[in-house]
Order: sequence, then structure tokens, then C-alpha cells
Amino acid sequence: MDVDDLERKHFMKTLAVFKYYRPYALKRVSEQTEIYEKLSERHKALIPDFLVAMQNIKKCIEANAFFISQILRNAKPDIFEGDHFLSNQHDAIENFVKSGVVNPQSDFAITSSDLDKVYSVLKQFVRDWSSVGAEERKQSYGPVLEEIKKLYWSSDRQLSDIRILVPGAGLGRLAWELANCGFSCQGNEWSLYMLLPAYFILNTCKKVGEYTLHPWATQFCNNMTRDNQTAAVAVPDVVPTDIPAGVQFSMVAGDFVEVYSEPESWDCVATVYFIDTAHNILDYLETIWRILVPGGYWINFGPLLYHFADIPGQDSIELSYEELKKAIKLVGFESVKEEVKIPSTFTQDPNSMLHYHYHCVLNVLRKPPSAKK
Amino acid sequence: MDVDDLERKHFMKTLAVFKYYRPYALKRVSEQTEIYEKLSERHKALIPDFLVAMQNIKKCIEANAFFISQILRNAKPDIFEGDHFLSNQHDAIENFVKSGVVNPQSDFAITSSDLDKVYSVLKQFVRDWSSVGAEERKQSYGPVLEEIKKLYWSSDRQLSDIRILVPGAGLGRLAWELANCGFSCQGNEWSLYMLLPAYFILNTCKKVGEYTLHPWATQFCNNMTRDNQTAAVAVPDVVPTDIPAGVQFSMVAGDFVEVYSEPESWDCVATVYFIDTAHNILDYLETIWRILVPGGYWINFGPLLYHFADIPGQDSIELSYEELKKAIKLVGFESVKEEVKIPSTFTQDPNSMLHYHYHCVLNVLRKPPSAKK
Repeated sequence: MDVDDLERKHFMKTLAVFKYYRPYALKRVSEQTEIYEKLSERHKALIPDFLVAMQNIKKCIEANAFFISQILRNAKPDIFEGDHFLSNQHDAIENFVKSGVVNPQSDFAITSSDLDKVYSVLKQFVRDWSSVGAEERKQSYGPVLEEIKKLYWSSDRQLSDIRILVPGAGLGRLAWELANCGFSCQGNEWSLYMLLPAYFILNTCKKVGEYTLHPWATQFCNNMTRDNQTAAVAVPDVVPTDIPAGVQFSMVAGDFVEVYSEPESWDCVATVYFIDTAHNILDYLETIWRILVPGGYWINFGPLLYHFADIPGQDSIELSYEELKKAIKLVGFESVKEEVKIPSTFTQDPNSMLHYHYHCVLNVLRKPPSAKK
Repeated sequence: MDVDDLERKHFMKTLAVFKYYRPYALKRVSEQTEIYEKLSERHKALIPDFLVAMQNIKKCIEANAFFISQILRNAKPDIFEGDHFLSNQHDAIENFVKSGVVNPQSDFAITSSDLDKVYSVLKQFVRDWSSVGAEERKQSYGPVLEEIKKLYWSSDRQLSDIRILVPGAGLGRLAWELANCGFSCQGNEWSLYMLLPAYFILNTCKKVGEYTLHPWATQFCNNMTRDNQTAAVAVPDVVPTDIPAGVQFSMVAGDFVEVYSEPESWDCVATVYFIDTAHNILDYLETIWRILVPGGYWINFGPLLYHFADIPGQDSIELSYEELKKAIKLVGFESVKEEVKIPSTFTQDPNSMLHYHYHCVLNVLRKPPSAKK
């Protein structure tokens, strides 16, 4: 297989995984029901509401599957203008999307960790495009937006001339917020699991609350009530196409280090929960340094979870924050501001009995105006 | 294989996993070093302290391996008085403990999730037997101890006549605290990964701070500094053999539901981070009900993480707290007290950039004095 074939296969597999969400999620409910059926009558009598709860969860999964079908309906080859591996694939994709249930054992070897990505997408919609996610956005996007406004709102330049790049843009909310403020902004994202839903929400969604998700429907543990598990979340909370006139806003697919090689092409790079997604975080540092104009800023917010840690066969170099800071300095950046231990969550169900809290760092870093090419 | 053979094999496998800690943990450091060696000289120069950090982590792993060797040296067949599957195994166990490196592929098919249990043991020592764990113990054991004292300190009975059972006793701190207060207390634990270290700390450790652990040494992500990763923790923080005279204190191995069948044999059952370890939580409710004397109390603290959720081939019925509460009532318990959303952590590294917070429930439940056998 050549590179185009591999890319096409990866694209089709992503569609297959999205399609497999429904049977996979429903299977989890069936398993719970089967275990219930094996209980003694005495035990069944102790949990009289159990089967009703399972029926309600099924309905939530069906609603999620409908939402996913809308994402797939819009998964058109022309999403990726730069890439040619999907040219002439229009009919093939459309037929695949319309076809019946995917067999997970067939062409694609779909694993539970593939499905986890779809579960994450639903939760990421809450984070990026619902009012339930407002608190999380305030914690993580908030400080970054604030720093950028402080840096540029008092400058002589037109905001729409200031070019900001958001690597690891996910479903696009931070990039959208920056564009909505008047900056020219480009989001970059590698994962198709994010790119297809991002395209859908940014380009086809026309009104507030157009869709209803049940992001916690497949979360069977740490529920205070079944109502928490079946909670409905409306998306989006804003109209994603609302961008001021004259502002450039785009999303670009691909690996950050490969896509962005043009030196001194960005005024600002904003990274939120991104830098730990690298195989080699030093590549990210050097790429950010290279593409910033002299005097440009890098605003960073996040933990150091290291995406590839413990994934067999994948290189991953895991630095402490102290080592990372030293490397940032050695690359040449000046530290304008540093805050540590900023509490922040990521796609957290506010009602769960289990919460993941990150103690994040916020960095405002500057490529000195005197820096040479 | 008969049941005794299986139990023996499980025992020997547990020893093998403990022994395999050292090469397994060191391999993780070697992998990081190999990735470092592949870096360009320019990248190496950006992280000048990296190799020194790896050397320090190696030393921590060696210290942990020494501590584990002390646990194994005390893994004698006579730990388990009730069980006969280890009789005549003394020499076999001693030879195995003294023998060289274990081959993970050999008899036991050791997996990374087996090794995770050893990593957990080291962290559990921090929780149960160090001053670093004091805050965690205050959050979870604290409210339970307080409720039990309130219930029994003003009673006419001698404290040493009051029999308290702690299922899921882990490394034994809560059971020890109750015994140290003067109650007669029995801890029950199913996992050999907990029982062997619990025996070691409770029976062979003679002074405060006798051992030094580095519980976060193998945690490569979310470190603010390498000093966090290599931090030393002294155990124990108390002398575990310090129990008032005349107080019964014991640890019993085995499955809670199987071991405890004698009706009305306990005054109080205290469960902390335990009830979600069941295949069927209703079995736990009924067992607790049965073994309590009429008028006896069940104190519960914890989340609903459900230990067997998502483990293939393992039954697991995952109730919401609302459903569980109803079942508790239907079994016959009276609710004396209920608190929800109590913040609590479990074996948390206080310096990590990632924290797991549980929103726990505290229940004080009573088997009515009028309850019939």
C-alpha cells in the first residue's frame, strides 16, 4: 500500500468506528441486562428500577447514534482541501456511510480503544460546544484568551492581521473563540476522530441547541443517580458560523510538525492540553520557535500527561516540567509569565463520583525580537 | 488441577510478580534512555539533566526492590492459618523467593496489569503506613472512626468486647486504628497482593521509619520535577505491633462472602473503598446484614468504581448510588446518617499534575434491634 492507500484506509476505518458506536454501546447494556437476568428473584426484587434504567440508557445511545450519523453524513472528501488521497472517493464514502452495520472483525480490526475515541468525542462536544462545558472552558481557554487579549488589544495592528495558530485544536472551540474576538486564526488537528466532528459542528450546524447528546450514557460507574447517566446536553451553545466579517478562520488537518515548516509565519501560537501529545516534545518546541515571527508569543496551558506513554512500540520521551522549562529556555524563548498548579478538568462529568483534576501550568513565552532566522 | 493446586499456583504467581517488579520497572527506564540516545545531539543538549535523572530513578527502583524482597522473605505458608493448601510448601516457597530473575513468559504469564498491582501496593503503603498518607486517611478513615467512636464510646460495654469487621482491609491501617482504639477488630482481605505486604508490615516491622520507599519512581507523566518522581517516603509512621493489651486484632484471608457466613457474629462492619469490589454488590449487602447482630451498625465510605466493570468475562452489576440506597433499605437497614459528595483521594501523589478526586458517600446504617435471624 502506498501512503495514499494507507490514508484512505485510515479514513474509512474512522468512519467504521463511528458507525460501530451504536452496536458496541448497546452491547454493554445487553450485558448488564443479562447479568441482571441471572440474579435470584430475591436480588431482582432489591433493584426494581434496573430494567427501566437500561431501557432509558438504550434510548440515549440511539440519540447519540443519530448525532454520529449526522457527523458521518457530512464526512465528505472535500473537508481536506490540501489532501488528495480522497479525490474520487465521494461515492465510496457515501455508500459506506449509508451501508448497514459494520463488522468489527472485518477489514478494520476495531478495538475497544478505538471506540473510546468516539466516547471521547461525545464528551469533547460537552467541553467545547455546550453550556455544561462553560466552566471547563473558563479554566483552560479562559487564561489563554485573556493573555492574548492583553498582548494584542492595545497594539496598533488590526486584530484581523494578527495570525494565531492553535495546534491540537480538537473540536475547534479555542480557535473559534480567537476568531470570534477578531483575530485571524487557524486550528490544526491530527486526529480524524476530531476533524470530522469539528467540520460538522463548524460548518453545518446553524442554530443554538440544534442537537441533543447523552455524553455519559455509557458510563456505568460512579453514578449518583441514573438521571446523571442519561443526562441530556444540548449543542452547540453558540452559532459556530458566527465569525466577524473579514476574519480568517480555518481548520487544517495533519501532523503539526509536518504541516508547519514555514519560518516566521505566525504572530502567536496557543496550545491548550496539546504539548504532551508529541512523540518528542522537543520537536514541538523547535517547530513553535521556527514558525513564530521574532517578537511573537507562545501561550501554553496544560498538564504533562504524555499521550504515547505506555503505548507499546511508540516512542515517547517524558520530561518533567522542570526539564521542559529548561529546554524552552535553551531553545531561546523568554518567559514573560508562568503560573503553576492551576486547577483544571478535561471532559469531566460534573455529577460523577470520580473527578480528574489537573494541576496545570500557564506559560506566556516570547521569541525575542532580536531572534535570527 | 484441584482447588488446592490452583491456590498454590496463584500464591506462587503472586510471588513471581513481586519478584518481577525490579526488571520490569528498570526496563521502563532503559526504554526512556534508548529513546534519548536516538535523539539528535541538538535535542540532547536541550535536556542536559536527563541521564542523571534516569540514574536516580534506577536507584529508587533498586530501593523499592529491596523493600519488596523483605516482603517476600516473610511470605511464609503459616501466614494463612485457616488454609491448608500451603502446608509442606515451606521449602518450595523459600527456594523460589531466593532464586534468580523470574521469566515473565514462563509458568505464570505475567502481564502489565499484574505489575500494576505491585505498583499499587507501594502507593498503598503511603496511604496506610506513612505520614504522607495522613491527609488521605483523615478524609476516608477519619469519618468512619469518628462515627464508630460516637456509637460505642458511651456504651456500657467494654470496647474490647465490641467486635468490628473490616472487609477489604488492604494493608490493614483502618483495622489497626480500630484495634488501637481498643475495639476487637478483624480485617478481611481477598488479594494476596495486599495480604503478603499486610502481614509483613503488621508482624515484622518493629520501628517507625524502618523502611524507605519511592512510590512514584515509575510514574513518568505529570511530574513537576524529577525530585517528585524520586521522592522518598518512610514507612511505617507508627509501630504496627502497638495494640492495647487484651484487644483482639487479626487479619483473615479469603473472599468476604465465603468466609463470613456465621449469622449475628459482629457488632459492627466498617467498609471503606470496598463495596464496589463485588461481582454482585447485593451479595455484600446481604452478607453484612446476616453477620451483624440485631442493633448492629454498618459504616460505609467510598465511591462506586466497580472493580470488575469492563473486565472481560467477569460479571459486574453496576448500580447507581440511588439504586444501591433503595436496595439497602429493602434488605432492611435503617439509615442513621448519610453524607454525600465528601472529597477523598486514593493513593494520590500529592505533587502530581494529575489528581483523582472521589466524591464519596458516608453511610451509617443500622440493622434494627427487632430484626429476626
